[in-house]
Amino acid sequence: MEKVNVAVLGATGAVGRTMIRILQERRFPMRSLKLLASPHSAGKVIDLGAKTGIVEEFSPAALKDVDLVFGAVDNDLVEEYAPLIQRSGALFVDNSSAFRLEEDVPLVIPEINARDIRWHHGIVANPNCATILAMMALSPILKLTRVKRMIVSTYQAVSGAGMKGMDELERQIRDPSAAPEVFPFPIAFNVIPQIGDFDENGISAEEWKMQNEGRRILHDEALQVSCTCVRVPVYRCHSESIYVETETEVSLDAIRQAAEECPGLVLNEAPYPTPKECTDSDAVVIGRLRRDEACPHGLHLWCCCDQLRKGAATNAVQIGEWAWQNGLLKKGV
Amino acid sequence: MEKVNVAVLGATGAVGRTMIRILQERRFPMRSLKLLASPHSAGKVIDLGAKTGIVEEFSPAALKDVDLVFGAVDNDLVEEYAPLIQRSGALFVDNSSAFRLEEDVPLVIPEINARDIRWHHGIVANPNCATILAMMALSPILKLTRVKRMIVSTYQAVSGAGMKGMDELERQIRDPSAAPEVFPFPIAFNVIPQIGDFDENGISAEEWKMQNEGRRILHDEALQVSCTCVRVPVYRCHSESIYVETETEVSLDAIRQAAEECPGLVLNEAPYPTPKECTDSDAVVIGRLRRDEACPHGLHLWCCCDQLRKGAATNAVQIGEWAWQNGLLKKGV
Repeated sequence: MEKVNVAVLGATGAVGRTMIRILQERRFPMRSLKLLASPHSAGKVIDLGAKTGIVEEFSPAALKDVDLVFGAVDNDLVEEYAPLIQRSGALFVDNSSAFRLEEDVPLVIPEINARDIRWHHGIVANPNCATILAMMALSPILKLTRVKRMIVSTYQAVSGAGMKGMDELERQIRDPSAAPEVFPFPIAFNVIPQIGDFDENGISAEEWKMQNEGRRILHDEALQVSCTCVRVPVYRCHSESIYVETETEVSLDAIRQAAEECPGLVLNEAPYPTPKECTDSDAVVIGRLRRDEACPHGLHLWCCCDQLRKGAATNAVQIGEWAWQNGLLKKGV
Repeated sequence: MEKVNVAVLGATGAVGRTMIRILQERRFPMRSLKLLASPHSAGKVIDLGAKTGIVEEFSPAALKDVDLVFGAVDNDLVEEYAPLIQRSGALFVDNSSAFRLEEDVPLVIPEINARDIRWHHGIVANPNCATILAMMALSPILKLTRVKRMIVSTYQAVSGAGMKGMDELERQIRDPSAAPEVFPFPIAFNVIPQIGDFDENGISAEEWKMQNEGRRILHDEALQVSCTCVRVPVYRCHSESIYVETETEVSLDAIRQAAEECPGLVLNEAPYPTPKECTDSDAVVIGRLRRDEACPHGLHLWCCCDQLRKGAATNAVQIGEWAWQNGLLKKGV
């Protein structure tokens, strides 16, 4: 098969840099790799391992001959750039939330709904990191029965706010009196129950993402999702405490067995995963699988994954791989 | 009323030191204050503010004339010392978990079930810190309706493991490669979904405490409690994400109004409490009060309290105050 001209848009950010690393690690069939960013970051030099790359300013001209664009910039820039990418004919795999709920944009976790990539119209959306973790963690249960309801409390790493989030934690650890700039409160030695703005019902943007995106990925409008999204002083791996109510009763052993056949998923009950040890790995690791004492169809589990890898960059690169393997990088859609 | 000869057992630990501080802050009607501990800690000097005190080894002789003993030592020592305290006739307010589920020992949060102190037989048990936080947080809802079910995920401070827990976090922040001694995994830049040992169903000791203690405090055997207890790198204030299902529908405004009349409770919706700002305060602070989108009787809230103060020492001292005010420090029961 023909190799691909790839561009990473937002190449200087935490997710963009991780995308580059993962494209290299997975030996993505690249003919060329272009590093793109907003004017602000153009000219920066990026370490590409054996060599370095210079970041170019995004423009329609820069997209000439590009087949596949991985996007790792914020919504405001995406809204400006996306029409230009679509006009270029390249497939746009976008990590922002701009298109995740658009009806004609598939929202994809390849291990769960790769086939949705088939009906893309030039854009495939990468889900929110906390959603990817939750859906991947439920994948063995979803092989056995329908999930009716989830109640999730998250323990989310500062990398979710990009490099500046990681820098802020480091700065406040060194100097606990350092004023917060990225997060609404100090994050060192603290936890903050807010990710994104609140709506009039007191639900945060991150909480809405998990509720809405889960339904789209599973194609289950009746799925009930409630969550509390909390930032914790961990660098780059998210964790979640999930309560699940299933439609039919499933045994823990059936789930354990199903987990063995779920790609990208690891079951660790010896004793359980922690975010520190799951950092810099692509696996979503689940553990603490147990029944709810009160509800016969209720289960609890704990899960962790690296927010920058499977929570963002790895999932996007997997979407690109699947599209390439299935001849779906078609231009001029 | 007659003043009281008080002893603090475990005076050198994090909870014991906080008990001494709170007895002084609240001007507990002390005639004398004895500092007791195991042989290991005897002879240590404790800062009492204006003066210092020397820790004595616990013995029946040391209890002579003592009316009230606040216990802040582990279960193994409590089991050895409690019969001796009972024989002395002093009231024993115990912070260990040794007696919390004993039928003839009241388990008390004064704001909720102070009247249970009336039927003590020489021991009143102080609940687990995570239980105190959850029950206090629910107190405005409990004024309005019955709580049928709770699903709780905790964000628990290292002070729950005493001074050695706080020291371990500090040591690992300075040197992230420092091996864990107190916690089963590194706690700096990490979260650990285990507090206490697991039973054969994979439920931790801390999770059992919250399930069983909540039922006893509310005198409601049908209360369904499920929880996931998680240690986070915060020094001394616990937080919890709580989902509550009530028996009848209650409005958020009714809960807000009820909160105003709940002693010891503060509602902070501007925007919400974090553990850092609740440290070194006696209040239990709730926020993020919101309806569950999926269940008409479902509510979510977030809460924080200082683990060493209201989560342990303050609650114990309040029990002592109530017993004293009601003439219940009777000897020779």
